[in-house]
Amino acid sequence: MKKTALIMAGGHGERFWPRSRKNLPKQFLSLTEDGKTLIQLTVERILPLVDMKDIYISTNKDYLDLVAEQLPDIPKENILCEPIGRNTAPCIGMGAAYIHKRSGDSCMIVLPSDHLIKYNQMFVTTLEDACEIALENGNLVTIGIAPTYAETGYGYIRFNPSESYKRGYKVLNFAEKPNIELAKQYVSSNEYLWNSGMFVWKTSTILDAFQHIMPDVYDGLMIIHDAIGTSAEEDVIRREFPKFPSISIDYGVMEKSDKIYTLPGNFGWDDVGSWLAMERIRQTNEFGNIADGNVITINTNNCIIQANQKLIACIGLEDLVIVDTEDATLICDKTSTNDIKKVIENLKVCNRNEYL
Amino acid sequence: MKKTALIMAGGHGERFWPRSRKNLPKQFLSLTEDGKTLIQLTVERILPLVDMKDIYISTNKDYLDLVAEQLPDIPKENILCEPIGRNTAPCIGMGAAYIHKRSGDSCMIVLPSDHLIKYNQMFVTTLEDACEIALENGNLVTIGIAPTYAETGYGYIRFNPSESYKRGYKVLNFAEKPNIELAKQYVSSNEYLWNSGMFVWKTSTILDAFQHIMPDVYDGLMIIHDAIGTSAEEDVIRREFPKFPSISIDYGVMEKSDKIYTLPGNFGWDDVGSWLAMERIRQTNEFGNIADGNVITINTNNCIIQANQKLIACIGLEDLVIVDTEDATLICDKTSTNDIKKVIENLKVCNRNEYL
Repeated sequence: MKKTALIMAGGHGERFWPRSRKNLPKQFLSLTEDGKTLIQLTVERILPLVDMKDIYISTNKDYLDLVAEQLPDIPKENILCEPIGRNTAPCIGMGAAYIHKRSGDSCMIVLPSDHLIKYNQMFVTTLEDACEIALENGNLVTIGIAPTYAETGYGYIRFNPSESYKRGYKVLNFAEKPNIELAKQYVSSNEYLWNSGMFVWKTSTILDAFQHIMPDVYDGLMIIHDAIGTSAEEDVIRREFPKFPSISIDYGVMEKSDKIYTLPGNFGWDDVGSWLAMERIRQTNEFGNIADGNVITINTNNCIIQANQKLIACIGLEDLVIVDTEDATLICDKTSTNDIKKVIENLKVCNRNEYL
Repeated sequence: MKKTALIMAGGHGERFWPRSRKNLPKQFLSLTEDGKTLIQLTVERILPLVDMKDIYISTNKDYLDLVAEQLPDIPKENILCEPIGRNTAPCIGMGAAYIHKRSGDSCMIVLPSDHLIKYNQMFVTTLEDACEIALENGNLVTIGIAPTYAETGYGYIRFNPSESYKRGYKVLNFAEKPNIELAKQYVSSNEYLWNSGMFVWKTSTILDAFQHIMPDVYDGLMIIHDAIGTSAEEDVIRREFPKFPSISIDYGVMEKSDKIYTLPGNFGWDDVGSWLAMERIRQTNEFGNIADGNVITINTNNCIIQANQKLIACIGLEDLVIVDTEDATLICDKTSTNDIKKVIENLKVCNRNEYL
């Protein structure tokens, strides 16, 4: 069966401020040395499996131009515009409706647009395995990541180690972000995987799941499905999409289905959750620094330094994140990157929208 | 006797980089909240004692325009240009020659242009006392500063506590920058003052001292003296001045004279030796920060932050100096401000003159 893909690119995270902005979220940034943006790498990564013409991007009107600019080879009609943010369930539902209408039933791969993967070949192999499972019995497949430490910032997937199918395992339940104690238990149990937000299923399967689990959403999706390719398409989406509840695919659909499998991925996944990710995705120099651009360091160690045009001179520094942009400079202790959102709150309260 | 002043403004320190540059040294920077530059404050401070027309500025050709711009009320002919840097003895000698030629014998006050003084009235009173001593017996007077701690970055003046004249004390010798042990001994002995580089004497006295102690320099100064006001003035200076040895007035003249007095000044003197001086000359906020301009701080304490146009967002920082300028940003641990010179060396070696 033909493979298709939906890449979700509507997010607007704040954790890469000041480089990420309201009008330039993380998926459109280049953080690796090859100069490619995260969404460009995401597309490139699945090309061994999916034809360019079968890759769909779901985003919103603010980012339509960015998507078209960064991904000129994606057919314009494959760029789907959510009129309003409604979390992943409606996003995926509409994507499935489009793909099903255009290609008939196909094996649909759903991917976030702002993650990084180190071992592309292993990733492709995992997706191939996932497709195999998805093609049988109306299975829904989610790609899990074997946890390497007790992370409290991710959701977890609990699987049954004794109920396997091909290379996958039956999912028992999804667990929300745990506290540190619980996270440690999850990791040491060897029955939990990190929830990466990557899914594989047939479009017919996921639409069936909507029909049974969220029938109201399904009805809306079918109205959209019928309007695709007609002159009413845009109007119908603008009318129907906002009616959908804001809910994730995990809690809205997956958790309520009983044919869910997970495949433990082991392909160097990184959700690039904060500036600290730079140390995982880039090589540090002999002083432990990642220094990009016009930088001089003296007695400076283990810092992440992103210069822009200006010279950045660092003296006697340890464990800082320094990011310079045209109009704002961040200087942040590595232990405090979560507080970047406080800066953004401050800017919002003070109506300094030029920095958001 | 009329009071005159020579303000020495030829220095080109590097310790306020990136705000101070080769073409904008510290004396021309504003570091206080009133927005006035250090040299402007120096002139203002002595106006109760010296007429504007009797204030002379010694500088070099690179800074002639800056002096004229920042001190428009100083007569153009009072701005003296050293063709080459030769330390303080030749600078002061030439200043004395000018002042003596123009005003006849006068009580000459010599001041650095890049220090700050907190209590102006006490400063004026001290200078008045110094003038009184200088008018008698051909005394040379140097203003000392009662040390408040064992500073190793200053020279010291040793005085004889039992040989006082008016409010001054006889100077025994000048001591170079001591190591920390010696500095502690100096301070606890109560017989040492910091050498502030401020002097008072009659022009006739200092010229006599040159005649006896540095007769070759004296001869050159007299050639200059005779040329002042003639069409040969510039040529003569350009020819004679570079012949002078590069030596400070302390070691060249003062130390070899036996009629030196020092007056302990207690007027909140600060040599503004590094960015750390900001904490002495400015009020810190409730978090111990001095934050100027477009700055947001989150959990940031005891930092000196000088923004320029850009927003500077500081998160989780302690004890840093952050200085932003149009083309360079310094981020420096407070204990490392001495290493600013390493950045400058690096820039010199790499021929990046635009940042010097």
